[in-house]
Amino acid sequence: MAKGKKLYEGKAKVLYEGPEPDTLIQYFKDDATAFNAEKKDTIDGKGALNNRLSEFFMNGLTQIGVPNHFIKRLNMREQLIRSCEIVPLEVIVRNYAAGSMSKRLGIEEGTQLPRPIVEFSYKDDSLGDPLVPEEYIIAFNWASQQDLDDILALALRVNDYLSGVMYGVGIKLIDFKIEIGRVWEGDFMRLIVADEISPDSCRLWDIETGQKLDKDVFRRDLGNLTDAYTEVARRLGVLPANVAPATKPTIVH
Amino acid sequence: MAKGKKLYEGKAKVLYEGPEPDTLIQYFKDDATAFNAEKKDTIDGKGALNNRLSEFFMNGLTQIGVPNHFIKRLNMREQLIRSCEIVPLEVIVRNYAAGSMSKRLGIEEGTQLPRPIVEFSYKDDSLGDPLVPEEYIIAFNWASQQDLDDILALALRVNDYLSGVMYGVGIKLIDFKIEIGRVWEGDFMRLIVADEISPDSCRLWDIETGQKLDKDVFRRDLGNLTDAYTEVARRLGVLPANVAPATKPTIVH
Ligand SMILES: Nc1ncnc2c1ncn2[C@@H]1O[C@H](COP(=O)(O)OP(=O)(O)O)[C@@H](O)[C@H]1O
Ligand SMILES: Nc1ncnc2c1ncn2[C@@H]1O[C@H](COP(=O)(O)OP(=O)(O)O)[C@@H](O)[C@H]1O
Ligand SMILES: [Mg+2]
Ligand SMILES: [Mg+2]
Repeated sequence: MAKGKKLYEGKAKVLYEGPEPDTLIQYFKDDATAFNAEKKDTIDGKGALNNRLSEFFMNGLTQIGVPNHFIKRLNMREQLIRSCEIVPLEVIVRNYAAGSMSKRLGIEEGTQLPRPIVEFSYKDDSLGDPLVPEEYIIAFNWASQQDLDDILALALRVNDYLSGVMYGVGIKLIDFKIEIGRVWEGDFMRLIVADEISPDSCRLWDIETGQKLDKDVFRRDLGNLTDAYTEVARRLGVLPANVAPATKPTIVH
Repeated sequence: MAKGKKLYEGKAKVLYEGPEPDTLIQYFKDDATAFNAEKKDTIDGKGALNNRLSEFFMNGLTQIGVPNHFIKRLNMREQLIRSCEIVPLEVIVRNYAAGSMSKRLGIEEGTQLPRPIVEFSYKDDSLGDPLVPEEYIIAFNWASQQDLDDILALALRVNDYLSGVMYGVGIKLIDFKIEIGRVWEGDFMRLIVADEISPDSCRLWDIETGQKLDKDVFRRDLGNLTDAYTEVARRLGVLPANVAPATKPTIVH
């Protein structure tokens, strides 16, 4: 598909004008960054894997009626998405302590939380995406109270669903981050899940061994990131044609 | 474990007194029945498979904080459960039309519903578990309005989660039935998921082929029921030691 103008280049993806009004093309790069881009590398195959995996999760969400930006995959690295006005928050859902929560509160990584906890970071790279109380969000008008209630409900549904997807293939969903966007249908505004859902934006641990199958492999130099993401894709029956695993893949979906 | 007195023998399971107060032992029989027990057979291996699968799903629900009766599996056919007062309703969640809904409304089986629909049958074999409007439930005091609201929320969470579990292994969750029970903690009453979650109580279709992997295989004489349930268990990495598949099983969970 003929891509339109480049609109934005981020750390992991590039956005282009789409073929129809209100559409965009999201291109998945092989770039990996961590610690607010202080650590950087190019990881062969990551973009294609995330493109496929985000397609898989967004399609699943569509099937259970969780609205999201995904329209269709165009090729190995690109997908057509619905353009939306991104709410400037990282919506993080945590089932087990890890990462910044573990550090901040001194809770050992992997400790189960009393219940899923939803937290918000203000999406601003120059500030390092700082954690913000809900009061800030309302006061600075990043989202209304009604939006926040809806975002919370959406995030918890995504959590139940993704926890199930992962549990079915022997993976524990430790936490994940989503972004939410606004779309208008006439005067009516709706909130939809946007950006991506992939091992870049989730913490995924093998249930049996505790092995990390997510971006922490890169953040903490725990091995080959593509191998980890390929393992997730393999278990879910999702494998892009270009990533050649040891045994011939069966493309199930 | 020494079983106590037999308390109840149903169509698919037997309940025994458990070792502790407020516990029961649930024994999974190989009996299959359909059409209100007009059709009957014994299906080698079904009980063991359902015991394992129900354990797997209930454990998953516990992990996401959906309260349920499962305590632990005792052996191939038995599990220890928390005794509860069963709400006399079959709580049915439908994502796609099938079975009685298709018949009643003339909707082709497999048609996606506009959103998940929760319906209730009054649990009474002599009446054939008739579908009942919510008004009946309140009027006859089978459950209060507050209970019903809570049951609805529980049922939708189970649906999101189970839909995810199935999607991850290439299966479409068409519909399922759960039962809900009351437990008391002092004066405080809680509703928990009880009975079983298994291919006896779900409709499961292979996403690619549409092949039925649930009790409809028995109801409609579509093949070997144990093979169908074994396929579900295999995909989820759950296989009881006694069911010998073609290749040596790896017990993942
Ligand atoms: N449907 C959408 N409409 C508009 N913008 C989107 C949509 N989905 C994601 N985005 C934005 O596109 C960018 C994706 O690129 P990424 O490399 O992740 O950027 P960043 O480095 O800012 O995180 C993000 O800024 C994200 O907020
Ligand atoms: N935790 C529980 N406490 C008490 N009763 C239960 C519990 N879980 C399931 N039951 C009941 O045990 C019985 C299970 O046996 P089953 O063969 O399914 O019976 P039925 O033929 O009545 O459907 C059902 O009547 C169900 O309501
Ligand atoms: Mg980003
Ligand atoms: Mg029953």
